[in-house]
Amino acid sequence: MDAPWIPVIDIETKLEEIEEPWSPVDLATVNDQVIRMALFHGEYHWHRHEEEDELFYVYRGEVRIEVKGHRDVELRSGEMAVIPRDVEHRPVSAGPSYVLMFEPLQLKSKGD
Amino acid sequence: MDAPWIPVIDIETKLEEIEEPWSPVDLATVNDQVIRMALFHGEYHWHRHEEEDELFYVYRGEVRIEVKGHRDVELRSGEMAVIPRDVEHRPVSAGPSYVLMFEPLQLKSKGD
Repeated sequence: MDAPWIPVIDIETKLEEIEEPWSPVDLATVNDQVIRMALFHGEYHWHRHEEEDELFYVYRGEVRIEVKGHRDVELRSGEMAVIPRDVEHRPVSAGPSYVLMFEPLQLKSKGD
Repeated sequence: MDAPWIPVIDIETKLEEIEEPWSPVDLATVNDQVIRMALFHGEYHWHRHEEEDELFYVYRGEVRIEVKGHRDVELRSGEMAVIPRDVEHRPVSAGPSYVLMFEPLQLKSKGD
């Protein structure tokens, strides 16, 4: 009998599954958190997550996160930032960018 | 008065701070989780985390995670896997590899 295996998630393969911007796909679940990847392209809407911090890690591309009451956060490939809970923000990407997001499992990805 | 800013974490800059293998540095905290980066080089010891899953994401290099009762998990750059809680495992990297790990804040990074 073959030994069981633990799945390997390849980001490049997952990228190819994404066609729609702002529609995250789940990559992995770890503890009570989920890692999602989304294509950012254009402007998202202003929103906040009342109870959860949200981590953005730019895998490819260049993203600006506008944050109410703060300076804009400019993220290039290989850079990450955490938007604290309850802080209103809006991601913007002039071209197509691929972004990993780290969120609690119960987070509605579209926010309020 | 300048608006407050949210810190940007640049992985390439953090890489340069790491000299010792198997000594994770914290990159960011999000909710009750912490993202760490470590240099993997050589063989780590067999260990398990009783209560926590552990995510490994290979940023650069090539890592094998040997897992008791499972097939080896071979991860190249851009690939990730989740080692479930309470499963004994041992990371191995023939050359230097840089790996992001996602763990609950309270996890002792060296395991039991």
